[in-house]
Amino acid sequence: MEQKIQLKESDIPRQWYNLAADLPTPPLPPLGPDGNPVTPDMLTPVFPMNLIEQEVSTKRWIDIPEEVLNILYRWRPTPLRRAVNLEKHLKTPARIYYKDESVSPPGSHKPNTAVPQAWYNKQFGIQRLTTETGAGQWGSALAFACKLIGLECKVFMVRISFDQKPFRKLMMQVWGAKCIASPSTETNAGRTILAQMPDTPGSLGIAISEAIEAAVTDPTGKTRYSLGSVLNHVLLHQTIIGLEAKKQLQSVGEKLPDIVIACAGGGSNFAGLAFPFTTDKINGANIEIMPIEPTACPKMTRGPFSYDHGDTACMTPLLPMYSLGHAFVPQPIHAGGLRYHGMAPLVCQGIVEGLFKPKAYKQTKCYESAMTWTQTEGTICAPETSHAIAAVIDEAVKAREEGKKKVILFNYSGHGLMDLVGYDNYLSGKLRDIEMPEDELFKYTKDLEKFPKAPMRKTGQW
Amino acid sequence: MEQKIQLKESDIPRQWYNLAADLPTPPLPPLGPDGNPVTPDMLTPVFPMNLIEQEVSTKRWIDIPEEVLNILYRWRPTPLRRAVNLEKHLKTPARIYYKDESVSPPGSHKPNTAVPQAWYNKQFGIQRLTTETGAGQWGSALAFACKLIGLECKVFMVRISFDQKPFRKLMMQVWGAKCIASPSTETNAGRTILAQMPDTPGSLGIAISEAIEAAVTDPTGKTRYSLGSVLNHVLLHQTIIGLEAKKQLQSVGEKLPDIVIACAGGGSNFAGLAFPFTTDKINGANIEIMPIEPTACPKMTRGPFSYDHGDTACMTPLLPMYSLGHAFVPQPIHAGGLRYHGMAPLVCQGIVEGLFKPKAYKQTKCYESAMTWTQTEGTICAPETSHAIAAVIDEAVKAREEGKKKVILFNYSGHGLMDLVGYDNYLSGKLRDIEMPEDELFKYTKDLEKFPKAPMRKTGQW
Repeated sequence: MEQKIQLKESDIPRQWYNLAADLPTPPLPPLGPDGNPVTPDMLTPVFPMNLIEQEVSTKRWIDIPEEVLNILYRWRPTPLRRAVNLEKHLKTPARIYYKDESVSPPGSHKPNTAVPQAWYNKQFGIQRLTTETGAGQWGSALAFACKLIGLECKVFMVRISFDQKPFRKLMMQVWGAKCIASPSTETNAGRTILAQMPDTPGSLGIAISEAIEAAVTDPTGKTRYSLGSVLNHVLLHQTIIGLEAKKQLQSVGEKLPDIVIACAGGGSNFAGLAFPFTTDKINGANIEIMPIEPTACPKMTRGPFSYDHGDTACMTPLLPMYSLGHAFVPQPIHAGGLRYHGMAPLVCQGIVEGLFKPKAYKQTKCYESAMTWTQTEGTICAPETSHAIAAVIDEAVKAREEGKKKVILFNYSGHGLMDLVGYDNYLSGKLRDIEMPEDELFKYTKDLEKFPKAPMRKTGQW
Repeated sequence: MEQKIQLKESDIPRQWYNLAADLPTPPLPPLGPDGNPVTPDMLTPVFPMNLIEQEVSTKRWIDIPEEVLNILYRWRPTPLRRAVNLEKHLKTPARIYYKDESVSPPGSHKPNTAVPQAWYNKQFGIQRLTTETGAGQWGSALAFACKLIGLECKVFMVRISFDQKPFRKLMMQVWGAKCIASPSTETNAGRTILAQMPDTPGSLGIAISEAIEAAVTDPTGKTRYSLGSVLNHVLLHQTIIGLEAKKQLQSVGEKLPDIVIACAGGGSNFAGLAFPFTTDKINGANIEIMPIEPTACPKMTRGPFSYDHGDTACMTPLLPMYSLGHAFVPQPIHAGGLRYHGMAPLVCQGIVEGLFKPKAYKQTKCYESAMTWTQTEGTICAPETSHAIAAVIDEAVKAREEGKKKVILFNYSGHGLMDLVGYDNYLSGKLRDIEMPEDELFKYTKDLEKFPKAPMRKTGQW
């Protein structure tokens, strides 16, 4: 059997899959400041109407525009690979497949939504997108998409990353984006913070506030904001991952996987791989679906299910989700993409329903797993991806112990070539798991009590 | 038509192509210190006999071991892609195809030879390889290969790169190699230099001397040295690139390319793509084959054809090649892989024969071309690869002016994700073309006069 399972461009999925059509109980609606559900019109200063329509859609299948496909062809369909060397190393009877999203030019799954978001904005007559970025993975993906589609792009990058991680910033600049350290003097939000704390290292919360403000205050009305995870339309665009994987598995005679695994920060790479298989689970297939998070930011495994804001500055609507509170600041683990206080509402509703079984891993265990991966499969994974690999190894060992020939599928969401400092810390013995005391971990969940209750509506039996 | 032309693993070439079998006049032999041809036995302290046999072989086809193929499958066959977006941008009738060697885990073509070299050494009972590296591209490829095959690996890295470019060093360490700043205290060569110049930034010449010394002085006899370019067996291993490309072109109905282009430092990525088409040219096909070099190191376009040492410290045999003299130190251009004073003897003999037409480009023009590439095709290329792209753009524009539907094939030898500093310098206007005065450029070619003459034996008419 070939280790790399290809799919022809002509066999690429031509529609995205929308889990909202099939969830036994749909997620609760986002709420505005007055506690009432947000209407599409209220979102128009921030997003173009064609994306808002996707955000609220309950249609099962949504066409992927031909022009979007023409750009995705630069790297899609991505290969599905079989990790035969890891299987041998673990002496497992499990067959381990992984979808290799690291092959995109920015090196992760992020451009799967950056490209359609840029395209729909361009169609709507928008000329400029703003966004925020932490370590730079999302910012570089949006810069890439805007360059190819012909939009200006402004990225507010958390200052500490801007100063300490110059390479992602350089990627954005090569793709023509303007990358600004946040807090900046370009927005009221930024100026206010700088006046109070001139030496602040910045935060994702502040950067989101600046990016939204820069979009909504543009007097020409030709600027909108773009988000790289959490929202329904973002997850929708990522489902091309799982739809391709399904075709590829079938092409080598595998019906369905027994276990589906992906790391989850805001939820988009997990949803992208898992949602197309979730529909099979809803229809009776026996599939374990596991979003993996760091123990340093354990919203899915330990956080309450509640309404909360998506950003620290409370500019977004209230979303129904597992959350540690919008003011929560996790330990500075290397997996920057998993340091988000909340989780996509569609993923959260799946957890409430029992469709998804989240699991948390410590950073050192993840780096240990990443090293096992590197020394068997040969590639260097992103710190976020190492969380999925840690869970894959555990499941493969369990399959060995149980003597079961399970099919494990996971998302290789990104490469780690821009994140080698974490490996250096691990190899030189500097990496530690700093456990946060319970009271610190849950310090901000009491803020959630002031928001409307989010009832755990559950119908399914899985 | 698909933009990405795949090849199945089952269709991978199973033999390497050896141009030495078909060159109208074979290259002159390497000479020892006494001026007599080097015999295979004399090389045994440095290389294992199975690789020495490949080095001196004139067999046309040499089998690729199954176990080597099993490792190459991790990223091979590599895609052949059509640069449709660059074509549109240039409004050229030319069809531009590129072989994407950037998809290997270390990010370049280098593992194509690192893997078989490690494998043959392991077969021969060797336990440890030494090598040198400048910016780290080759060192990381050999570290990767040794990890997968089960050899120890020690890399002497030029000190200035070791200090200034920590990321390639980290890649080597992740793959388990020991990476040492050169000059080091581990060898006589290193200690001697350090005693004279404690603050030296090091050089590739010194690093080669240290790596060879570390191999030949190991009392267990279980250590050998590995070189990443120049030698016949290294070029041989790279021919899998061109052999795959030929099958892929044929699969989309292209008979042969009209133009074949690759950058050339020591010559291995150029040879890898070009040699399988050179045999067609020898047999009458009308193909222009162009190795591209930087004007900062113009050995092929301006250097004399002569016998010279492969390293600064004169430890290697004398090789017949175009050379600027083994003591030549080029300007510090970002394309570190093209800063070598000589060129592979097989490539040089092809130039003498008129089979290859070398061309030189200035650094600023190359970065300008790299930016055109990034903004059309979307990926960020290595500074070395940008030299090939500069020539491709010139040929595509010429095809437009002549109204000719030419087929241009080039080697996308590596990505530039570890080389973003050069882009930063270009974008911020700091990049300059520093022209070396003629007397400095040719200062060391007079050293060549003391070596045996290398007659320009030429039989072909191309």
